[in-house]
Amino acid sequence: MASKFAGRRNLDFLLYEVHDVQRLFSLPYYEEHSRETCDLAIDTAMKLAKNLLYPYLREMDEKEPVLEEGQVKVHPIVKTMMKEWGEGGWLSSALPFEADGQQLPVIVHMACNFLFAAANFSATGYSLLTAGAAHLILSHGTGDMKKMYIPRMVAGEWQGTMAMTEPQAGSSLSDITTRATPTDQGYYKIRGQKIFISAGDHDGVENIVHMMLAKIEGGPPGVKGISLFLVPKKRPGAGGSLEPNDVTVSAVYHKLGYRGCPITQLSIGDNDDCRGYLVGEPHKGLSYMFQMMNEARIGVGMQATGIASAAYYASLEYAAQRLQGRRLSTKDPVLPQVPIIEHADIRRMLLFQRAITEGSLSVILQSAIYADLVKASDGEDRERYELLLDLLTPVAKSYPSENGIMSVSQGLQILGGYGYCREFPLEQYYRDIRIHPIHEGTTTIQAMDLLGRKVVMKNGKALELFFEEVRGTIQAAAAFEELMPYCERLEEALEKCRVVTMHRLQFAMRGDLEKFLADATLYLELFGTVAVAWQWLAQGLAACRGLTGDCSDVNRRFYEGKLHTMRYFFHYEAPKIHGPASRLMESDGLTVEMNHSIFDD
Amino acid sequence: MASKFAGRRNLDFLLYEVHDVQRLFSLPYYEEHSRETCDLAIDTAMKLAKNLLYPYLREMDEKEPVLEEGQVKVHPIVKTMMKEWGEGGWLSSALPFEADGQQLPVIVHMACNFLFAAANFSATGYSLLTAGAAHLILSHGTGDMKKMYIPRMVAGEWQGTMAMTEPQAGSSLSDITTRATPTDQGYYKIRGQKIFISAGDHDGVENIVHMMLAKIEGGPPGVKGISLFLVPKKRPGAGGSLEPNDVTVSAVYHKLGYRGCPITQLSIGDNDDCRGYLVGEPHKGLSYMFQMMNEARIGVGMQATGIASAAYYASLEYAAQRLQGRRLSTKDPVLPQVPIIEHADIRRMLLFQRAITEGSLSVILQSAIYADLVKASDGEDRERYELLLDLLTPVAKSYPSENGIMSVSQGLQILGGYGYCREFPLEQYYRDIRIHPIHEGTTTIQAMDLLGRKVVMKNGKALELFFEEVRGTIQAAAAFEELMPYCERLEEALEKCRVVTMHRLQFAMRGDLEKFLADATLYLELFGTVAVAWQWLAQGLAACRGLTGDCSDVNRRFYEGKLHTMRYFFHYEAPKIHGPASRLMESDGLTVEMNHSIFDD
Repeated sequence: MASKFAGRRNLDFLLYEVHDVQRLFSLPYYEEHSRETCDLAIDTAMKLAKNLLYPYLREMDEKEPVLEEGQVKVHPIVKTMMKEWGEGGWLSSALPFEADGQQLPVIVHMACNFLFAAANFSATGYSLLTAGAAHLILSHGTGDMKKMYIPRMVAGEWQGTMAMTEPQAGSSLSDITTRATPTDQGYYKIRGQKIFISAGDHDGVENIVHMMLAKIEGGPPGVKGISLFLVPKKRPGAGGSLEPNDVTVSAVYHKLGYRGCPITQLSIGDNDDCRGYLVGEPHKGLSYMFQMMNEARIGVGMQATGIASAAYYASLEYAAQRLQGRRLSTKDPVLPQVPIIEHADIRRMLLFQRAITEGSLSVILQSAIYADLVKASDGEDRERYELLLDLLTPVAKSYPSENGIMSVSQGLQILGGYGYCREFPLEQYYRDIRIHPIHEGTTTIQAMDLLGRKVVMKNGKALELFFEEVRGTIQAAAAFEELMPYCERLEEALEKCRVVTMHRLQFAMRGDLEKFLADATLYLELFGTVAVAWQWLAQGLAACRGLTGDCSDVNRRFYEGKLHTMRYFFHYEAPKIHGPASRLMESDGLTVEMNHSIFDD
Repeated sequence: MASKFAGRRNLDFLLYEVHDVQRLFSLPYYEEHSRETCDLAIDTAMKLAKNLLYPYLREMDEKEPVLEEGQVKVHPIVKTMMKEWGEGGWLSSALPFEADGQQLPVIVHMACNFLFAAANFSATGYSLLTAGAAHLILSHGTGDMKKMYIPRMVAGEWQGTMAMTEPQAGSSLSDITTRATPTDQGYYKIRGQKIFISAGDHDGVENIVHMMLAKIEGGPPGVKGISLFLVPKKRPGAGGSLEPNDVTVSAVYHKLGYRGCPITQLSIGDNDDCRGYLVGEPHKGLSYMFQMMNEARIGVGMQATGIASAAYYASLEYAAQRLQGRRLSTKDPVLPQVPIIEHADIRRMLLFQRAITEGSLSVILQSAIYADLVKASDGEDRERYELLLDLLTPVAKSYPSENGIMSVSQGLQILGGYGYCREFPLEQYYRDIRIHPIHEGTTTIQAMDLLGRKVVMKNGKALELFFEEVRGTIQAAAAFEELMPYCERLEEALEKCRVVTMHRLQFAMRGDLEKFLADATLYLELFGTVAVAWQWLAQGLAACRGLTGDCSDVNRRFYEGKLHTMRYFFHYEAPKIHGPASRLMESDGLTVEMNHSIFDD
């Protein structure tokens, strides 16, 4: 195990110097908070991550969950983790005071969870789902539900889940067939199958609370007939008793990674005795679920960034210690070998890892502070931040997931043969991170969401606001001469993004949806790179500001590291947009009009 | 398991229509061969791959090798595989008739091994190393060695290895410390440690024959003091007995993938009783070893391509069967769901997999036929093909390895959540293929070999010849109107490659080796893409030729599939050179001149 999985200095820099969390404290919603309360949260999270989560990273991977007599058994430490998270208030920290939460800024909550994910990604499967489900109940549940479920969930006694996917309905939610039949008892009877349900059952908690999509009989077809139900594994009875609710686990999946958290297949209502409680109005379930899903999507990006961060520090530590070869300028075999961090290509790989990790984290925190500004403002401001958050969500989910995989892979490469061995941590990170472009909406789904929904919504207003935000950073950065070349590069990239967008929109205007969205994934790649380039310019700007005036040696080195990594991003990563951009400017419909019999051979 | 792991029609197309294997049969060295003998070899290889290798793919992954009482135990089927390969003549098929080989063209031998690797990559670890070691003994060993070792090795009774790496000497071979002390008995006493030795010990054979690098005491420092020794695990004694030779296995590695083949750590001469037999002259060991290493490098590219092929067919099969969602143009939830191969983004991913797999295989076979032409020609011709083979080797190793990873990853993505589960084959392919950019020289090493050695050798003659070859294909392809746009695109890419090369060479001429090679990995990426674009134009050309005149429906579809995949490559993959090219034209030395203290935080 490496000695470090995340950088505290970096987190402070992003929170206070780049994203200016302080501005929240003057808004009424966050006036109870201050740098002190936020720092305390982060300090405590770091301790928990270090002392409780990180030490079990490998063990939880090696002892994967098993299904025994209908019960999923997980590593016993999960129970302790849930308890500690509950007692520390971590499962309710972002909930409002009125719901006994701490009303902690989302961005700080996100930073804390980033530390947890960097220390032990699988463990955060339990906590994030529980917090997300509790938040969903708070937003749309009945008073009784809130009273019964939220306190147990945020105490870490009951696990929350998101139960959407079915065998015949993965990406296509309109095809779910789980049925809800009304009764005159105030509940529905639920019957169906759910697959790939994370933390869908385990012995680290007393009960499981499924936030489940189902169709009420006789409702409209497709997504317009989907309702949201709260379906507990055990239903609370009189006097605090818990009765079985006819939800059984039919399988636990054996996965490439993410082995510390069980992914389950559920059979619901086999004995016609599963009770589900309607959340909100009938047939509006999908729109409610989007609250939890959007939080989960940014959460996935954050988890991917956490793994990438841990991998970065592990390979950095290895590169600084491992002696191998000599610099090309002094290649005499009688000279001693040098640490491999002296080699240019190793540095390039480390800079890649760092640029991806810290760029991703910055874009995640950008989304989080938009979420804070939505909560804390109203009127036009609120709409502005809502649009920006909506637009950025697929990017915050996908960029860290897709690029995190490459970043961890480069980290593994730095360790050479050792990177491929289970005695070193990189191979676990490599397995763990591969889930992220898949769950909570694949990259393809995110891409169609970005181009097909977010870019076009409100006549392109979100995109316009995004351009405004980026140009604001460029303007501020132009005050520093050394940032000028990067302001220009970002301006050019932004212009390319605009031109490409206009070109694709022609197809939408003609009603040719297939051609419009055929290369949406390349568009997401281009857009994501531009967004992260923006975040790097913002980091460069904060570093330049930090370097003016008095500055300790340690801080100077830190800011210079930021500037160097920003340069790396603009010289090596940003030019990668040219490939997808050139393809996106074409119009041939190569993947649309083909006959797939050409794959026969 | 998918029903298919490789395409026979594609193999025939590449061998006979693209690479024109027939031309070999008129050369004296290959005059005993014909399309019939080659087809027979491929048919037999396909049967062996299907019936013996493929069925054990998963089992060999699940039951990984263990070290018990000093002996590595592998899956019992390995013994049968080695026996079958030996009896079928597969371990000597490319050896000359005079060494009891079949003098089979290297390109056909490569095609057969591709089938084996596609069926079961780990299994080919045993065979390729044995065949390579036997070939090395044949080239440089003594008459006695050839008599004693080669027959047992090619019979599959004794395993061959390549024993180079040491704990302190991975990529830096000049730092090996294994010592050879001469005796007056005709052998040397060997003492040292070797790590990461593939198939370094196992119970599927009677004996292990290590081709081992060591330094004779008193020799020059660095690579100039490295000698090659044959070091058996058990030394042959009088009357066919086998005596222990003081080579012990100290560990077997636990790996991410490639689990069907043991990678071992060896302790040599702990009891001062290990005998090594000098191969060739003292201090010239590394140049001898390069024969085996270069074969192994192309072998690695071929193995990566094999895995990518199996992954491609597995995801293609899944995509044709899995129903999910509807086409964007007919998105009505009451319509039945369509197979996901109907979705443009799935097609893009499948085309990506196919373009990478078949492009890689073509570049591998291109290298192989150069090897044949080296064997079968002399004088200037021979020099020409040697140079082309030398230049292409790092590309043939790296392009399939690096892009194969991405290709398998896209295959996994097509399966969604199932791709991440061990019940489906993609996750094993994803783990297996990750070794390839590491072993037999990392991608960085290949990149420095390409730019630092191959491009500059003989005043750039190899590069000049390569350009000539590519231009030859462009000229021929220009006869077909539908290929014209792709001829132009390739010509432009080639020109970009030339300009970038000249820019980098300025640094070499100034003696600034560090800057010259700092971004060699990007250069390899660019060069590899150009080389594979060339292979795709060659495939397009062969398809156009196939489509002229009479052509069955099946063939027509096949050729159209080739043309479509070629188009995909030029529209989606070839433009990716713009990113690295723009970086390679810069001169700032961002990774050279930096102080690595900027990584402290």
